[in-house]
Amino acid sequence: MSIQIPRGTQDILPGEVEKWQYVEEVAKTLCYNYQYKEIRTPIFEASELFTRGVGDTTDIVQKEMYMFEDRGGRSLALRPEGTASVVRSFVGNKMFGHPNQPTKLFYSGPMFRYERPQAGRYRQFVQFGVEALGSEDPAIDAEVISLAMGIYKKLGLTQLKLVINSLGDAGSRNAHREALINHFKPRIDEFCGDCQNRLEKNPLRILDCKKDRDHELMSTAPSILDYLNDESKQYFEKVQKHLSGMDVEFTVDPTLVRGLDYYNHTAFEIMSDAEGFGAITTLCGGGRYNGLVEMIGGPETPGIGFAFSIERLLSALEAEGVELPIEQGVECFIVSLGDDAKDYAVKLLHNLRAAGISSEKDYLDRKVKGQFKAADRYEAKYVAVIGDNELQENKINLKDMATGEQEEVSLDQLVDNVKSKLGK
Amino acid sequence: MSIQIPRGTQDILPGEVEKWQYVEEVAKTLCYNYQYKEIRTPIFEASELFTRGVGDTTDIVQKEMYMFEDRGGRSLALRPEGTASVVRSFVGNKMFGHPNQPTKLFYSGPMFRYERPQAGRYRQFVQFGVEALGSEDPAIDAEVISLAMGIYKKLGLTQLKLVINSLGDAGSRNAHREALINHFKPRIDEFCGDCQNRLEKNPLRILDCKKDRDHELMSTAPSILDYLNDESKQYFEKVQKHLSGMDVEFTVDPTLVRGLDYYNHTAFEIMSDAEGFGAITTLCGGGRYNGLVEMIGGPETPGIGFAFSIERLLSALEAEGVELPIEQGVECFIVSLGDDAKDYAVKLLHNLRAAGISSEKDYLDRKVKGQFKAADRYEAKYVAVIGDNELQENKINLKDMATGEQEEVSLDQLVDNVKSKLGK
Repeated sequence: MSIQIPRGTQDILPGEVEKWQYVEEVAKTLCYNYQYKEIRTPIFEASELFTRGVGDTTDIVQKEMYMFEDRGGRSLALRPEGTASVVRSFVGNKMFGHPNQPTKLFYSGPMFRYERPQAGRYRQFVQFGVEALGSEDPAIDAEVISLAMGIYKKLGLTQLKLVINSLGDAGSRNAHREALINHFKPRIDEFCGDCQNRLEKNPLRILDCKKDRDHELMSTAPSILDYLNDESKQYFEKVQKHLSGMDVEFTVDPTLVRGLDYYNHTAFEIMSDAEGFGAITTLCGGGRYNGLVEMIGGPETPGIGFAFSIERLLSALEAEGVELPIEQGVECFIVSLGDDAKDYAVKLLHNLRAAGISSEKDYLDRKVKGQFKAADRYEAKYVAVIGDNELQENKINLKDMATGEQEEVSLDQLVDNVKSKLGK
Repeated sequence: MSIQIPRGTQDILPGEVEKWQYVEEVAKTLCYNYQYKEIRTPIFEASELFTRGVGDTTDIVQKEMYMFEDRGGRSLALRPEGTASVVRSFVGNKMFGHPNQPTKLFYSGPMFRYERPQAGRYRQFVQFGVEALGSEDPAIDAEVISLAMGIYKKLGLTQLKLVINSLGDAGSRNAHREALINHFKPRIDEFCGDCQNRLEKNPLRILDCKKDRDHELMSTAPSILDYLNDESKQYFEKVQKHLSGMDVEFTVDPTLVRGLDYYNHTAFEIMSDAEGFGAITTLCGGGRYNGLVEMIGGPETPGIGFAFSIERLLSALEAEGVELPIEQGVECFIVSLGDDAKDYAVKLLHNLRAAGISSEKDYLDRKVKGQFKAADRYEAKYVAVIGDNELQENKINLKDMATGEQEEVSLDQLVDNVKSKLGK
């Protein structure tokens, strides 16, 4: 009996995997241009990291996290997101002590959430994200946003919508919080149980409630922008000024909020406007989290970052009909006829590959006709044909599959000949 | 309080991660030259996959596997190796039905084994491996071996030792098995309990025993090579002939065995001879497993592959003193003086990066001297200096850090100028 792939996960197979490679390569190259360097953290972490760093009242931690004990009795969790791990590493490796600050990092790897599987949503998905730790310059906020937009644009997405907001500093957030409580309190019994719990603990999260989103008090709720103090206002204006200087278009949406306490100042989301992309339109979310490093046990350090799912990015590319420039074909396919030629082909193939030419031959004892068909299926640029006679005469027939032209090449010259034809 | 990284795992940080990227890129490029294409399978699988595919009597499954139940009560395991998952995917996705056979795949990713942490051994480690499914041509065996050697050589390793052996086909293995039982049985009470259990179940694994390796019966045990039938002998000879044709040096070692039933014919290991590499010298192991696909629930399909740990590969590179050609420096660093120039630098930086130039500026309000020091630490190739005066005059000072030469460039020309200097 065959064994099934775990529910909510997928294999990424040849034909599809090249898109992943391409997207990751573009994102990585742009990150290095922006001087964000890769960090790789373990797949699992102490569970406590996420209860602290993501928040023990969040759905992610309460309902969706894969937790288990290792054979030594430690409580571990498959990471549900990337930021907490990066901050844990920043603190544990004392990166704050390195002279090059801010510390600019990116990561790309699988994350895990036990959600109901549905179209485009997996229990294992790949998140790409960046974190800039150690600077509170509004230029860093603009840089992080422009990097996210830059990756999407570089890949060919055009139907994008960037929404930004400011949550202000602690003082602004507290003033807004009071206003929200006063706004909702008189009629809180009209709201769901979750929202009633949120009222005193975290009224900002009421604005995110999916059940109550049509309640009339939602649209009249006090806007954070009216509660920003001067410093927070100036900070937000500077971020916007830098974005405009970079020709990054955006709209301000005061309803874009982040529930957790350590978020402050800039918050942003990038959405796809593409038709037929379906209900989930947010591609990327990010924001500033000046309180997180301290919460994970490090020194007070400002931070900002974003994360996006590669699965959703690929869906957006598909929705916009973007063709990624991926080459699939093999450069040279060897067709052989006769026992000696067949053996010789193994050696020749090795020499082609050693010279950096992608090459293939038949391994199933196919007849010549079958080998030519295989060459077609492998989308070969050149086909080299050798029989026992040619081998004795030290020559080989080389066919250009695009033009149909054929020529006889000395066997010793084949590798150099193909190499120069390919411009290598 | 700070949170520790889980025991036996490591963060891979900038400065080190570039080596990983380089090594993986070389391996990946060579795989594509050989027409092995990437496959990505989930981090966890149904536990049963590994009890079947790795073997429920192995240490890996019995002592080292991370097993847990998900919230739906499924028994899952973090993958301890890559082959079983690839074969599960090959079967589940019916890849055997694709016209391009053999199916040639590679993978690279984290694997998990709960072992006692020690130098160079981690509970999460990265394995790179290939599998060729669907051909029993000895040329494929030679190809797989030469690919592994090719990756190591391409990276600059020279002190390598390739050891090969043949376990023969089922008939040869059975004959050898009988001979082993007859050899050990009379004195099996002199062996450890494990070996006593192995005698009837799997006598081949006695040869792998670490406790009894000095027993005199070990060196006189019957060699598999004396029990190969004609077909198996011819197969092994052909593999050797192809390897010689590719100029791949090897030695035959009849004590190189694989305990599990589905292994047959070719087995190989690549070891490092480098001085000071320590006790663990095996870099890569591989072999033919014609029975595995059927065991996982697929049609009878021959297969062969190898796997190596990237951690160990990097140790070998270090032991041989190989310097990988990794560039760390930033191409252009902007130094700014004055409020307007500082703001303008954000925009300029954006334009440089958009043009594909890796660039950086200061984000900590450093003075000019501090900014120049930062440029040195970032190993900048060029430093562009702009003050409010230069900004008004629409020009900028560009310094080549290698030669010390300076020139004044029109602000609009900066990006093109740096680009052409970098040959981009």
